[in-house]
Amino acid sequence: MISVVILGAGNVAHHLYKAFYSSENVTIKQWYNRNIERILSYKNEVAITDDLSQLTEADIYIIAVSDDAIGELSQQLPFEERFVVHTSGSVSAYDLDKKNRRGVFYPLQTFSKSADIDFSQVPICLETLMKKDYMPLKNLATSISSITKRVNSDQRAALHLAAVFVNNFTNQLYRVAHEITESKGAEFDLLKPLILETAIKVQELSPFKAQTGPAKRNDKKTIKRHLKLLDNEHHKDLYKLLTTSIKQTHGR
Amino acid sequence: MISVVILGAGNVAHHLYKAFYSSENVTIKQWYNRNIERILSYKNEVAITDDLSQLTEADIYIIAVSDDAIGELSQQLPFEERFVVHTSGSVSAYDLDKKNRRGVFYPLQTFSKSADIDFSQVPICLETLMKKDYMPLKNLATSISSITKRVNSDQRAALHLAAVFVNNFTNQLYRVAHEITESKGAEFDLLKPLILETAIKVQELSPFKAQTGPAKRNDKKTIKRHLKLLDNEHHKDLYKLLTTSIKQTHGR
Repeated sequence: MISVVILGAGNVAHHLYKAFYSSENVTIKQWYNRNIERILSYKNEVAITDDLSQLTEADIYIIAVSDDAIGELSQQLPFEERFVVHTSGSVSAYDLDKKNRRGVFYPLQTFSKSADIDFSQVPICLETLMKKDYMPLKNLATSISSITKRVNSDQRAALHLAAVFVNNFTNQLYRVAHEITESKGAEFDLLKPLILETAIKVQELSPFKAQTGPAKRNDKKTIKRHLKLLDNEHHKDLYKLLTTSIKQTHGR
Repeated sequence: MISVVILGAGNVAHHLYKAFYSSENVTIKQWYNRNIERILSYKNEVAITDDLSQLTEADIYIIAVSDDAIGELSQQLPFEERFVVHTSGSVSAYDLDKKNRRGVFYPLQTFSKSADIDFSQVPICLETLMKKDYMPLKNLATSISSITKRVNSDQRAALHLAAVFVNNFTNQLYRVAHEITESKGAEFDLLKPLILETAIKVQELSPFKAQTGPAKRNDKKTIKRHLKLLDNEHHKDLYKLLTTSIKQTHGR
């Protein structure tokens, strides 16, 4: 049995809480948040506190707060030599105060308040500064997910950056598609199966092999017609840059 | 029972053949292709031909060939006043020879040779130049898909253009993510659940509401760090343009 204390009450903290709570191998000793209101509804399930001096002993302390607040919160912890991890993709393990043993427990997924997540399919990227801390952290990860991976800080930074491309930027392309269809009175909903299939395709095939379309074929006639159809200059810029990108990738 | 003749043997033609073949409401009278080799393996299931003069009578002739070949093939058809449709997102119904009644049967999905498609979830966009042809075409569509929609040429052009954004361009972002992770020795595979979740999220939520990340938050520190991390100038350009795009959408 691994005991944890969760610090923070954002989306990641909430989803981790649920996953740990459902796991037979994990005890949540305590849930801390600066503002107790946000975790008050859990008080019958778990010990809650807004007072750092009241933190109880646990195997692993999990700081799941915004990137900018991680360093400061770790400094305020009223103990030493314990094992403290954060959950951020872009913050270094060294940003944690060195009075404690340090590590990272980064679940690579997008978490929103509403959507339920099947944590068993969320890759958890692990890093510890001390060798002996790795196995306990790995055990914690495998108790909620079937995909765990040791990832150093450089690799984690690359994954976090790449995640912006496949998540935020991709979502923005969906948004642009929404704007294009709406402006012509067409239904964005008709694109949803295609959106899904595009994501499913690269689960098996590399994005390189999965590519199709006018840019890959260098179909100048269609590209020209598309550019003419786009009346928003900004959409035009995106179309041009991404078409160039595809051509470069596929040697056109 | 609706009878059809399929013309062409590309991915769309193959997937349509399979869907029609499985449908109880459709008889495939004949399958034509200029090069008979490509459909030879179906000769025990369906009448095949490479001779346009041998085309049999059918309710609907479906031209599923490359965009550039549609017009010419329609001119070569050795009959008049019959109902002929093409399956392209970007070709006008008027590009079909006017000696026949004309329409469009555009399945909005990405088709590859390998991947099987559940056609019942593929939106089929329909257009006919004559009113009386609409119901037969609609019946044909509903016999293989539960999502059918009347779409005029302008709307179809917008959908086809928007499809490039959510399919080809999105796939290219996956490719860039692949390049970024590989260059740092990180595993692209770890991003696959995120890719899937991003696509699933917008099935229910609008892309506007689904957006998260540094650009939306205008988190300058993270954006700066990401730009520093990107050593490929072209990736940098993509990052900047898409970040600007998100900021514009979300009023930053």
